[in-house]
Amino acid sequence: MEISPAIHDPQGQEKQQQAAGVGILLQIMMLVLSFVLGHVLRRHKFYYLPEASASLLIGLIVGGLANISNTETSIRTWFNFHDEFFFLFLLPPIIFQSGFSLQPKPFFSNFGAIVTFSVLGTFVASIVTGVLVYLGGVMFLMYRLPFVECLMFGSLISATDPVTVLSIFQELGSDVNLYALVFGESVLNDAMAISLYRTMSLVRSHSSGQNFFMVIVRFLETFVGSMSAGVGVGFTSALLFKYAGLDVDNLQNLECCLFVLFPYFSYMLAEGLSLSGIVSILFTGIVMKHYTYSNLSGNSQRFVSAFFHLISSLAETFVFIYMGFDIAMEKHSWSHVGFICFSILFIVIARAANVFGCGYLVNLARPAHRKIPMTHQKALWYSGLRGAMAFALALQSVHDLPEGHGQTIFTATTAIVVLTVLLIGGSTGTMLEALEVVGDSRDTALGDGFEVVNNRYMTSFDDEDSPSGSGFRTKLREFHKSAASFTELDRNYLTPFFTSHNGEYDDDVNNEISHEERIPFARRGNLNNRG
Amino acid sequence: MEISPAIHDPQGQEKQQQAAGVGILLQIMMLVLSFVLGHVLRRHKFYYLPEASASLLIGLIVGGLANISNTETSIRTWFNFHDEFFFLFLLPPIIFQSGFSLQPKPFFSNFGAIVTFSVLGTFVASIVTGVLVYLGGVMFLMYRLPFVECLMFGSLISATDPVTVLSIFQELGSDVNLYALVFGESVLNDAMAISLYRTMSLVRSHSSGQNFFMVIVRFLETFVGSMSAGVGVGFTSALLFKYAGLDVDNLQNLECCLFVLFPYFSYMLAEGLSLSGIVSILFTGIVMKHYTYSNLSGNSQRFVSAFFHLISSLAETFVFIYMGFDIAMEKHSWSHVGFICFSILFIVIARAANVFGCGYLVNLARPAHRKIPMTHQKALWYSGLRGAMAFALALQSVHDLPEGHGQTIFTATTAIVVLTVLLIGGSTGTMLEALEVVGDSRDTALGDGFEVVNNRYMTSFDDEDSPSGSGFRTKLREFHKSAASFTELDRNYLTPFFTSHNGEYDDDVNNEISHEERIPFARRGNLNNRG
Repeated sequence: MEISPAIHDPQGQEKQQQAAGVGILLQIMMLVLSFVLGHVLRRHKFYYLPEASASLLIGLIVGGLANISNTETSIRTWFNFHDEFFFLFLLPPIIFQSGFSLQPKPFFSNFGAIVTFSVLGTFVASIVTGVLVYLGGVMFLMYRLPFVECLMFGSLISATDPVTVLSIFQELGSDVNLYALVFGESVLNDAMAISLYRTMSLVRSHSSGQNFFMVIVRFLETFVGSMSAGVGVGFTSALLFKYAGLDVDNLQNLECCLFVLFPYFSYMLAEGLSLSGIVSILFTGIVMKHYTYSNLSGNSQRFVSAFFHLISSLAETFVFIYMGFDIAMEKHSWSHVGFICFSILFIVIARAANVFGCGYLVNLARPAHRKIPMTHQKALWYSGLRGAMAFALALQSVHDLPEGHGQTIFTATTAIVVLTVLLIGGSTGTMLEALEVVGDSRDTALGDGFEVVNNRYMTSFDDEDSPSGSGFRTKLREFHKSAASFTELDRNYLTPFFTSHNGEYDDDVNNEISHEERIPFARRGNLNNRG
Repeated sequence: MEISPAIHDPQGQEKQQQAAGVGILLQIMMLVLSFVLGHVLRRHKFYYLPEASASLLIGLIVGGLANISNTETSIRTWFNFHDEFFFLFLLPPIIFQSGFSLQPKPFFSNFGAIVTFSVLGTFVASIVTGVLVYLGGVMFLMYRLPFVECLMFGSLISATDPVTVLSIFQELGSDVNLYALVFGESVLNDAMAISLYRTMSLVRSHSSGQNFFMVIVRFLETFVGSMSAGVGVGFTSALLFKYAGLDVDNLQNLECCLFVLFPYFSYMLAEGLSLSGIVSILFTGIVMKHYTYSNLSGNSQRFVSAFFHLISSLAETFVFIYMGFDIAMEKHSWSHVGFICFSILFIVIARAANVFGCGYLVNLARPAHRKIPMTHQKALWYSGLRGAMAFALALQSVHDLPEGHGQTIFTATTAIVVLTVLLIGGSTGTMLEALEVVGDSRDTALGDGFEVVNNRYMTSFDDEDSPSGSGFRTKLREFHKSAASFTELDRNYLTPFFTSHNGEYDDDVNNEISHEERIPFARRGNLNNRG
């Protein structure tokens, strides 16, 4: 151990330790307040201020109070935690939980659409945002950034986090396919946004002698490499738990200890390999939920679900409080206001390009009864809140970019997160009801596809198909088939190989997604009502 | 937020981040290995290497390998975490869990004895060790330290941690009263050792103008203040959970989130008040288990038990690995060997003074059928392993004392921890069997007192009572009564006030501790078999 040089001022050290104690105390009190306030608001069905917004507001208020008080500097130091804390302790549980709480069945039955929205769509959104921000700079509408940095900003701001939208979906009851689409897209687009961001960042630092081909290779390296690392760790854990025979009653603690170490292992393995830990832990979450989880004993299953839900709730609430606090404490130069306003306009346009563009493509490939209705596309477009992931990448950009540029991106991102969470979060209930995609009418949740919904909304959409796209359409249908064949592969080879029960899952998959499908969601609603 | 100045060397930063990733990766692998090895050893009933020893050995081996390899420096930096990490994240869960896993009934029925051993006994042990170390220094047997620093060393080395002994108790089945005695004493003596250490540390830094009276006041301030803070937070949490009405099914996550925030709140509150966070969180643990816990819903009860057990297992295993690693990595000056050897001799003597002295006093106060048999006293004496708490205080002393002194104490403490864990831990099974205090013979676990045991071992002991001590003895009996009246107070006022069910507990307490008493331990054995 490296012992830091002995400090011969025990009193000074004690004071410092005491100040740190008071800071953490304040943070805990804000956490408790957020949980209690969020609970009270939910209990009174006050959907204009979801929990995430409440946490943000608490942070804003405490930050504002600290800002006008005299003791500003000391309060500021209390909250001055290292970025390390954010990247090592706050972000991994949030991202793992988003992968871990994916319901495999609706996710895989919408796999093609989700991948289209989150891979192709996020790529489109990033480029559109980046180009618009660059043009805005060129036209002196906003702070001017170099093109590559615009693309970096475009990538990081494309990571969505519809936590409040999803919690209201669960509260009000929504179509499983819409839920899977919004949730699945938000989970996977994080991976895409990080990979794009890292690629752009690499392009920026080795700007000479890089051609377009190398950029693609870099991107695939990050995305596929991190994904493989995550999936590999997930599969390893599945095999370990399948054969170790730990699913007996009195080994629950050992089982859970090992289980909770794997995600972190995956995160650190990827970081050690210069890949993206976040992308890796996300895929580990998906794989561990789908395979490893079912090899656990019943008690441990309940425990690890509650465990990851608990720590991700704590981390997420903390991040929202922190973001609110941060934006209230920052010394803002008002030159950023233009940047923020135009950025918001541009991300709205970029998300429209993503959702409606990809929605059109997906509908080309899907059979008539399974097309994504316009209302669902609108709901997906509306769910473009920005959250912890965008914030984390913006924090990263402060280190990656020259001072002024990084700071501008960071301020803009924080502001966008706060505004989207407060505005979109507050209006979600109204919007979803206006779009008639939620509510207790069981009709909308029926069936494998959207039969009922289609009859109502989709007739006009069907007619839009132009015959000119038919060759392309065939290819898309093939892609759709390949997504379906992944389900086959999973059912016939992966599930039997990585889990201890073969029969059950098969039966489940063969059934159409039916009324029963709502039950796991109802259960999840209880466990996951903090997103 | 304080943004650290932008670093324009992304590659250097990335390398550093990568190195940190590899370090954590290695630590996770060591954790996994420890858990698996511990499990395999326990499964094969190999009691010579309990889990804590296995973790220590893994740390020692990896540290040794790192030491002889070329890349030493970089591996050393991987493990170079801040002391902050230890005090903020590793120690609190360990200490809270030790309070939280106390079984209230056997603990309170042996309350008087436990308090005597841990308050009076630890005081005696600290003074004896301190004086002997000072005399050793004066006589040039060992490194010479000033008297106050000897007392600081005496206090910190008096914090015991019989984790391996207790796990073997659970494995082999032991008398509940002996278990409560060993466990309760080790839990409370941590609080006493910290308070003594802090008092001595204050005496040292304001050495002029302090009289003996002020020392006592300082000590009471730390001990009683921290205890009150902890108990206060515990009671607050009990009332919150009693009246908040969160024990309904779909609020499990909210309930658990709030529950896990309280211990940390207690820790930070005490630190913010310049008291001892560790002492505070310990008492919060005891109070929360006794009162708050029973106000939780059934699901949450199971969850929080498993949760605290899980994180304390992880933290504890990590601390043992870390201690092993540390002692292998340190550049030791061999001048410390004398200090270590004599210290070990002195702590053995001091613990004998503690256990047999206090055992004599307790037996004076107890009625004949409840006296503590000599075998139990010997088992208690033998259970004097040193662990995380002594290590933490030694780490603290490096900051508090001049360089050479702090380093000597730190090295000696680490060595003592490693030696006692390996030697005592390895021989516990043999020793306990030799003392015949474990085993499946139900006899030893019977009854409110020690009737059966007494018949076998206690006859000679009873005769030793000298009539001269009778006035003193009356006072002791009164003290014993007051401990009993605490149980009355608890049953009649505290439990009804702080928990939602009044009747059940009363009935439980009115029953004599009977055969059924073993059941909770069997259950705990499953959950808590890592201590």
